[in-house]
Amino acid sequence: MDELSFLKALRARANSTGHAGNLMPLTGGPARLSERPTNGSVRLGIGDDCAVLRPPVGCDVVVTTDFSLEGRHFRRDWHSGTSAGHRCLARGLSDLAAMGARPMAAFLSLALPAGYTKSSKNRAWLDDFLGGMLQLSMAVNAPLAGGDTSTAPGDKVFADIVLTGYVKRGKEMRRSGARPGNWIYITGGLGGAAAELQALQAFPRRFLRATAAENHPHLFPIARLKAGERIREFATAALDVSDGLSTDLHHLCEESGVGAVVDESSLPLHSLLDDMPWNEALEKVLHGGEDYELLFTTPTNAKVPRRVAGVPVTRIGEITQEKAVFLRTSTGKRRLKAAGWEHVL
Amino acid sequence: MDELSFLKALRARANSTGHAGNLMPLTGGPARLSERPTNGSVRLGIGDDCAVLRPPVGCDVVVTTDFSLEGRHFRRDWHSGTSAGHRCLARGLSDLAAMGARPMAAFLSLALPAGYTKSSKNRAWLDDFLGGMLQLSMAVNAPLAGGDTSTAPGDKVFADIVLTGYVKRGKEMRRSGARPGNWIYITGGLGGAAAELQALQAFPRRFLRATAAENHPHLFPIARLKAGERIREFATAALDVSDGLSTDLHHLCEESGVGAVVDESSLPLHSLLDDMPWNEALEKVLHGGEDYELLFTTPTNAKVPRRVAGVPVTRIGEITQEKAVFLRTSTGKRRLKAAGWEHVL
Repeated sequence: MDELSFLKALRARANSTGHAGNLMPLTGGPARLSERPTNGSVRLGIGDDCAVLRPPVGCDVVVTTDFSLEGRHFRRDWHSGTSAGHRCLARGLSDLAAMGARPMAAFLSLALPAGYTKSSKNRAWLDDFLGGMLQLSMAVNAPLAGGDTSTAPGDKVFADIVLTGYVKRGKEMRRSGARPGNWIYITGGLGGAAAELQALQAFPRRFLRATAAENHPHLFPIARLKAGERIREFATAALDVSDGLSTDLHHLCEESGVGAVVDESSLPLHSLLDDMPWNEALEKVLHGGEDYELLFTTPTNAKVPRRVAGVPVTRIGEITQEKAVFLRTSTGKRRLKAAGWEHVL
Repeated sequence: MDELSFLKALRARANSTGHAGNLMPLTGGPARLSERPTNGSVRLGIGDDCAVLRPPVGCDVVVTTDFSLEGRHFRRDWHSGTSAGHRCLARGLSDLAAMGARPMAAFLSLALPAGYTKSSKNRAWLDDFLGGMLQLSMAVNAPLAGGDTSTAPGDKVFADIVLTGYVKRGKEMRRSGARPGNWIYITGGLGGAAAELQALQAFPRRFLRATAAENHPHLFPIARLKAGERIREFATAALDVSDGLSTDLHHLCEESGVGAVVDESSLPLHSLLDDMPWNEALEKVLHGGEDYELLFTTPTNAKVPRRVAGVPVTRIGEITQEKAVFLRTSTGKRRLKAAGWEHVL
């Protein structure tokens, strides 16, 4: 099946399950797409040898790719198709947010086990997967502009998501810009995704009907795209917390050639941790992954609002010259090791 | 393993096997990359949340993705790692050529079976795979600017290649622009890849030491990048012949809403078909895939040179209003069915 056939099938599939409202970028071939663009940057979508994108004048283009593998990044018995599709796309969107970029277009390469779509249960799951992805792609104006399909080896679904975006020329946030003396900030609350994953492990079936409209930090993570664009105006460095605060702070420090001290008492907890013992909650806040919040640094004189694009922003520490990462607690200072999430379910 | 670790490993791997000369875009993190860019469009490569690309002013961006799966697109017993790596990248490059675009950057998402690199034989093959890919990426100035890695399900190597390129704003070649009365042209010779594949099936081990410098249309296909840029100046439509002339001509006609008549006697044969009986050769020319030549159409008054960027160009037929594809032979006209290659080895 070539790319065009694949995406026609994708459209038919999603249409047949009531996701038609999300499918603007898939309706019609190239000609109709350019007549009715749903995203000004996509000049030519599905159906030719390449998609053609036009970033706004004066902008650079950003690109990120993420594999999502059944059994590693999602499980059929824990994640509805809708959640799995949402999660695949959200990972890439969060990488755009971390650069302060705005989405331009998404590309889905999808490998299905041989004979996969012969089972109606599989087809239903796949419908939901595509629906969950398309719903999010529409919500953030990142139309699906192409992709590929293949037969997967083995019996697992396998997806590679490519996200493209744009950012004002030379103004992207990088991991490497943190300087000694900078403050460290984080958006939102931490540990929520890890807490929900723990609940999911205990009661898997309870979550299969969860929706993106509810508070589900693991099942339906939110990429901080609008916050990222605002933060870009005053941040010296940024990245998204996908591997856990401890690991990602190490990444930022390594790329910037600096160290950091984080204040334990300042760490913002996700609301799902409200009833959790402190030690257990702290573990999730420091090392739980997939929160997809933005970790960023600013000069001390930067005017950082308490909320950015509706998301709370908390100062959690400072960047140091000494190239080590510490946690400051009520009883002193201890080394904070990179012990974050490794994306193995 | 995160993206950075993966690509550091990739570099170390390639360095350790003498491919270091090809590794300019992988040396160092973002900072060093921007100090010594090997491609003016890559502002930030490996090591951050996204790569940052800057297409030349006045250009659109093109994007294409291609899965390459062991057992389907390459086989360890037929293809050296060098050939498999070259082939993965060449498929995407050919899609850029078909739009008349110039490469900007490549992204490799690579999934390896669990424990794959524990075997020295596997490591050697992987070294060659990365080396073959990097060698081609350097030759066409499409540096590897990012990617992802994952554990593959099953026991097969699995790669997704993303190619980005740029083309003068609004000037890309599309499949949809062919008009009744247009001439149909093809670059190079057809059927060579299918002929070599047949030889490979008969004598697999004979080809494991083949190199890109020799004439190996299947093992080391050549994307017609420079020819594509020239052809763009006079073509009304184009695509690359990856699925076979019969299938790809149908694609072009469908997207353009037209039909075609091809003259059997005008079809250019690849030199590997020189000693083959006519019927057997014709089968490969019409339906053999992966030649990666450019099929394009022009107005009848276009001045089409006999060679474009060193590649012969042959007129093979004309576009018709009647929406059907015919082959004109010495004895009359017959329908030409789409019976091309399906990328199953």
